[in-house]
Amino acid sequence: MRNLYNEPCAFAGYPVDPADHIRNDQNHVAQLQKDPDTQVMIFVDSRPLMVLPDLSIFYLSVKEIELADHPCLFMGLRYDTGEAVFAVALDPQSAENILSDTVKAIDLRSIAYQLTAKAYAPELALLGKARSILDWHHRHGFCANCGAKTNLSKAGYARKCPACGTEHFPRTDPVVIMLVTHGDELLLGRSPHFPKGSYSALAGFMEPGETIEEACAREVFEESGIRVKNVQYLKSQPWPFPSSLMIGLTAEAENTDIQLEGSELEDARWFSRDQVIENIKQGGDDNLRIAGYNIAIARHLVEWWLRE
Amino acid sequence: MRNLYNEPCAFAGYPVDPADHIRNDQNHVAQLQKDPDTQVMIFVDSRPLMVLPDLSIFYLSVKEIELADHPCLFMGLRYDTGEAVFAVALDPQSAENILSDTVKAIDLRSIAYQLTAKAYAPELALLGKARSILDWHHRHGFCANCGAKTNLSKAGYARKCPACGTEHFPRTDPVVIMLVTHGDELLLGRSPHFPKGSYSALAGFMEPGETIEEACAREVFEESGIRVKNVQYLKSQPWPFPSSLMIGLTAEAENTDIQLEGSELEDARWFSRDQVIENIKQGGDDNLRIAGYNIAIARHLVEWWLRE
Repeated sequence: MRNLYNEPCAFAGYPVDPADHIRNDQNHVAQLQKDPDTQVMIFVDSRPLMVLPDLSIFYLSVKEIELADHPCLFMGLRYDTGEAVFAVALDPQSAENILSDTVKAIDLRSIAYQLTAKAYAPELALLGKARSILDWHHRHGFCANCGAKTNLSKAGYARKCPACGTEHFPRTDPVVIMLVTHGDELLLGRSPHFPKGSYSALAGFMEPGETIEEACAREVFEESGIRVKNVQYLKSQPWPFPSSLMIGLTAEAENTDIQLEGSELEDARWFSRDQVIENIKQGGDDNLRIAGYNIAIARHLVEWWLRE
Repeated sequence: MRNLYNEPCAFAGYPVDPADHIRNDQNHVAQLQKDPDTQVMIFVDSRPLMVLPDLSIFYLSVKEIELADHPCLFMGLRYDTGEAVFAVALDPQSAENILSDTVKAIDLRSIAYQLTAKAYAPELALLGKARSILDWHHRHGFCANCGAKTNLSKAGYARKCPACGTEHFPRTDPVVIMLVTHGDELLLGRSPHFPKGSYSALAGFMEPGETIEEACAREVFEESGIRVKNVQYLKSQPWPFPSSLMIGLTAEAENTDIQLEGSELEDARWFSRDQVIENIKQGGDDNLRIAGYNIAIARHLVEWWLRE
């Protein structure tokens, strides 16, 4: 059986050289933006353009699009050929004459489900990073410090305010996501917005002023009334909806009496190892589906626990 | 000898109950803001007011200050007494009649150096979180989405735009900081802005689209030309200048030939275990000071390595 824990998570494993030193070299960026070998990924309303039916990334050459007219991000250089890759956000009107029966804008979650169904798909890391940062530009056109309109800078890795000079950088929001165990049992919960029957690992955004371990303990207590100890880091995942860093943890429960009062969860329960194994093997159904999504780190964490 | 690695880092170990459920309950917050037992920490230009000579936190009661007039943050409830704690940012003029020979606004780094000199100081976690979030309010008065002025909301844990409805939350910026080892040697570097002779662990901000392990490898390669494998998580630290989450790692080098071209570092070098032990024992000097600051996670990581 495929062991997800040993694979990179979806959206991890960036497949091109980020070549960060180029970002600050405007001339170098400008030169790459004119290079006929450069490849350009296109996003429309945060959805990448993909080639059907094989669901590969659609690329334009720089002869086919004027990069300076749109929010544009330098993605890096291909390891094998040295070719540059950029990503561009187009408004629906500008994209109209690119779309066709075989070139379509597709929701990234849907792409991820399809591409990861059988094997790890490195191109998701490219799509995820581009989506996160282009979406950030879309929602951050003004200076939080003074309210003026800002300009894209550093090849798409910053925005600069012409009025007060403040530089703004894309957010990366750390989220703790944890398997809480008690002997041979696992604590899982469901948010009201989860699909019917779905249960997964507890999770929550970190805040200024706490360690990863403290955030884990705070979130678990807030959501379930369970106190935890022995927090251990397992693995992490970039999550581009919109720009989270999922920090995968395990922790041991000190009590078992779940309290949902004041919780953001609709339900939380203890599951036995046998129940989890059985449900994952079957794929679950609308009555109970445990960590049902290959693209989420929660599934990797549960598979780690089952094999420990 | 004191083993820093076994202690919480400075700014970790939040000492009051964050009582997160209260934040969304405006009536409850308003009631606590009138409670005569409530304690109010004061910040002026990001510097907390402290009582001298013992360097303890200075508190006002709500009879002495009108909380509604200033940016105000709910810090939580004392575990022992249930008393509420708030933090407030005052402009220098409003603070003038509070300051005295024994009540002074002091730079938080300086407070941290003094308080951690002999033992772990839990009150730094309170000061750090308050500083991070009040400073964020100060620099984020406008909506990044539309440019309108925003209002503080959720007891200080958000800002809301009255024009477009967007909610904004304080940033927590994850930073990878890593001990790179090669056999019995340690890779350390110095930024141009470090004090003379200081060397410390390599570090850098994470970006959207990468795991913790990928960020570590990217940063080490960019700054030193060294490729790493076997990245392991050790511990983390909230760092309130302005709002970083320091993620402490160790990694093994695959090569040893340091390349500083294009690096942000002024220098990077391999140090032997004996050199590190000797320098830390002596406290170092302007010729060489290795991880010289108790308040930084780098020192905890180096002490971990020395004891491994």
